[in-house]
Amino acid sequence: MYTVKVDTTADETGACAQMSSGCVLVTGGAGFVGTHSVIELINAGYSVVVVDNFVNASHESLKRVEEICGTKIPIFSVDLTDKQALADLFKKHKFTSVIHFAGLKAVGESCELPLLYYKVNIGGTTNLLEVMKENNVKNLIFSSSATVYGTPEYLPLDENHPTGGCTNPYGKTKYFIEEIMKDLCKSDPEWNIVILRYFNPVGAHKSGKIGEDPKGVPNNLMPYCAQVAVGKRKEINVYGNDYDTPDGTGVRDYIHVEDLAIGHVAAQKKIEECCGLKIYNLGTGQGYSVMDMINALSKAAGKPVPYKIAERRTGDIASCYSKPDLAAKELGWKATRGLDEMCEDLWRWQTMNPDGFNSNGPKS
Amino acid sequence: MYTVKVDTTADETGACAQMSSGCVLVTGGAGFVGTHSVIELINAGYSVVVVDNFVNASHESLKRVEEICGTKIPIFSVDLTDKQALADLFKKHKFTSVIHFAGLKAVGESCELPLLYYKVNIGGTTNLLEVMKENNVKNLIFSSSATVYGTPEYLPLDENHPTGGCTNPYGKTKYFIEEIMKDLCKSDPEWNIVILRYFNPVGAHKSGKIGEDPKGVPNNLMPYCAQVAVGKRKEINVYGNDYDTPDGTGVRDYIHVEDLAIGHVAAQKKIEECCGLKIYNLGTGQGYSVMDMINALSKAAGKPVPYKIAERRTGDIASCYSKPDLAAKELGWKATRGLDEMCEDLWRWQTMNPDGFNSNGPKS
Repeated sequence: MYTVKVDTTADETGACAQMSSGCVLVTGGAGFVGTHSVIELINAGYSVVVVDNFVNASHESLKRVEEICGTKIPIFSVDLTDKQALADLFKKHKFTSVIHFAGLKAVGESCELPLLYYKVNIGGTTNLLEVMKENNVKNLIFSSSATVYGTPEYLPLDENHPTGGCTNPYGKTKYFIEEIMKDLCKSDPEWNIVILRYFNPVGAHKSGKIGEDPKGVPNNLMPYCAQVAVGKRKEINVYGNDYDTPDGTGVRDYIHVEDLAIGHVAAQKKIEECCGLKIYNLGTGQGYSVMDMINALSKAAGKPVPYKIAERRTGDIASCYSKPDLAAKELGWKATRGLDEMCEDLWRWQTMNPDGFNSNGPKS
Repeated sequence: MYTVKVDTTADETGACAQMSSGCVLVTGGAGFVGTHSVIELINAGYSVVVVDNFVNASHESLKRVEEICGTKIPIFSVDLTDKQALADLFKKHKFTSVIHFAGLKAVGESCELPLLYYKVNIGGTTNLLEVMKENNVKNLIFSSSATVYGTPEYLPLDENHPTGGCTNPYGKTKYFIEEIMKDLCKSDPEWNIVILRYFNPVGAHKSGKIGEDPKGVPNNLMPYCAQVAVGKRKEINVYGNDYDTPDGTGVRDYIHVEDLAIGHVAAQKKIEECCGLKIYNLGTGQGYSVMDMINALSKAAGKPVPYKIAERRTGDIASCYSKPDLAAKELGWKATRGLDEMCEDLWRWQTMNPDGFNSNGPKS
C-alpha cells in the first residue's frame, strides 16, 4: 500500500539506499516540471528522493509518478526554509547531486507579497546550498528562467545576453539566485552547478496521468486555454494584438515539459563530468504567438477555444525566444516535440483530469 | 554599574520605554557608523534601542557611547538571522522606526564566503522586514553603499545612475536588499524607507572615544594609514599610480563619519513625513586621491606615513564620487567636515586607542 513519507525519520529502505552510487535529491519534485523530471531521471536509471512542501503541489502527483515508473519514491515533506529539517534529511541519505525546482513562481503574487518570495526562494536556496556544503554535496542543477534576461536587447536570446533587468520579484529571485550560485562557484571550484533557463514549459506527460495543475485561476496561457476548452472557463483573454509580431500577439518559446525534463537528465550527465558552472537555455528556438497557441489547442481539442482581445498588460514584451544551440552542443540535448504534440498531450491531461489532481484519478 | 543586556527578556525600564513616542531600533548599533549615529540620534532627542550580534563590534564601543551621551542605552545581543529573537524583541518594545546597519561588510571576505554574506545580509534583512511588518512598524532607514552603482558610467554619481553592476557578493547584497525594499514599498504604500548610499566613511568622534576598529588587517585605506602612522604597520600599499586621475592614484569621496551620522538623523526626520521610498547619496561631492589622503593623515599625525606603490587591484576603479545635491535639497543635509578634520579626528582616536576598543580606555 502506498504511503507518503512525511518526516525525515523514515528508514532507508527506499529505492535510494539500494543504489551504491547515491542518489539525486529533487526539491520541488511534486510540481509540474519536477514530476516530469523525476520520471525521466528514473527512466535514465537514477535513484531519486523527492522533497516538497506541498504548498503548490499535491501528493497525488507523485503517486501517479510512482504508477508511471512502477517504483516507490522516497518522499519527504520538507520546507526549504526549515534548514534543520533539510540538514536532518542529508544526515539520513547520501545524495550525489541535487536538482532544485522548489520555489514560488507566480509573477503577480510576487508583486503583492515580495517578502514571501524573497524569503522562500532566496532563503530556501541559501539554506539548501549551506546544507549541501556542510555535507560535501557540491553538485547542483537549478531551475532558472528566461525571465532573468529581462527585456530582450536582441533575439534569439543566447546565454550571453545580459541578465538582471527583471521587473518583478519572482524574476529577481531567479536572477539573484543565479548570482549567488556564480559567486559560490567562484569561491570554491569543487562546486558543479548547471543553471537551466527555461522558456515556456507546456504540455503534459504522454500518459495523461500528470500535467500542470494550477491552483485557482491559471497564470499561464496554455493551462487557461485548456480550462476554457474543457468548459471550466468562458474565454481566454489575449492581452494585446498590436505588438510588432507576425499576427500582433505576443510571441514566446513554448517547450514541451517532457523535452524540458529530458534536459535535466542531460544536465545531470554534465554535472558528472565535473563541469564547474554552466548555464544553458532550454527552449526550442521557435517562437509561437498567442494566436498560434490558441489555434493549435483548438485543433487538438477538436473545437474552437473562445478568446477575446484585451488591453496589453504592463511589463509584457512582444517577443521572447531562445537560441538553444549551446545546450545542443554541450549537453547533446534538443527539444524534439512540436506544437501539435504539446497541445495533444496537454489536452489528454486536461480531459482525463478536468480538475487536475483533484479529479477522480485518470480515466485510463 | 554598567551591564549589557544580552537577552530579550530584559524589562522595559530603559530609556526607550520612557518616551511615549516610541523609539528607534538601531541594528548593528555597535559598529562604526552605528555608534556615531546612535550618538547623533540621542543628541537629537531620540530614544534608541540597539541590537548587535557583536561579531564585528565590541560591547566597549557602546559603553563609550553611553559615556559620551550620559545615558543608558538598552542593548540586546541578537543576530538578525534568528527571527524568533527579533520577534521577541519587538514584542517587548514599541519601535516607531528602524535604522538598519547590521551586516557583514568586507569585500574580500565576501568573495571567499559568499553564502555567509547572502545568508547574513539578505536573510537577516528579510527577517527584519518580516518582523517589522508583523508588528506594523513600517519605517526604515537602510545603510546602503555607493558600491551599488558598480563601475560609474558618469561622474559625479547621482541617485539616478544605474545600479546593479556589482562584482563582489558584498556589493550584491546591498543591491539585492535595495531591490527587495523597492518591491516592498511598491507592494504596500504604508512603508516609508530611506535608502542611504554611503560613499567612504572615515574620521572618528571628536571626543576620541569611538572610531573605526577593524578586526585584523584593515580593509580600508584610512584605518590602515592610521595604523602605519601609529607604528603598528610598516607602510601602506598604494594600489596603482597610473589611473586617469590628477596624481594617478584612485579618487574616492571620503566623508566624515559624524557627517554621515547626522545624515541619519535627517533621514529619520524624512521618514516622519511619511516619505515612501527615498534614496539619497551621502557623500561630500569632493573626490580625494589616495595620495591626498596619505598626505593629509601625515599632516595630522605630524610625521610622514610611509607608503609603497603596488600593482592595481582587480575590480578597483579610477574614480568614484557623489553628487550630494538631492540630500541637500530634500533632507536639508550637507557634509560640513573637511579633509583635515577627518584626519585630525581619526588621528585622535588612533592615538588615544592604539588597539581600538581593546586599548585600556581612552587616555583623556
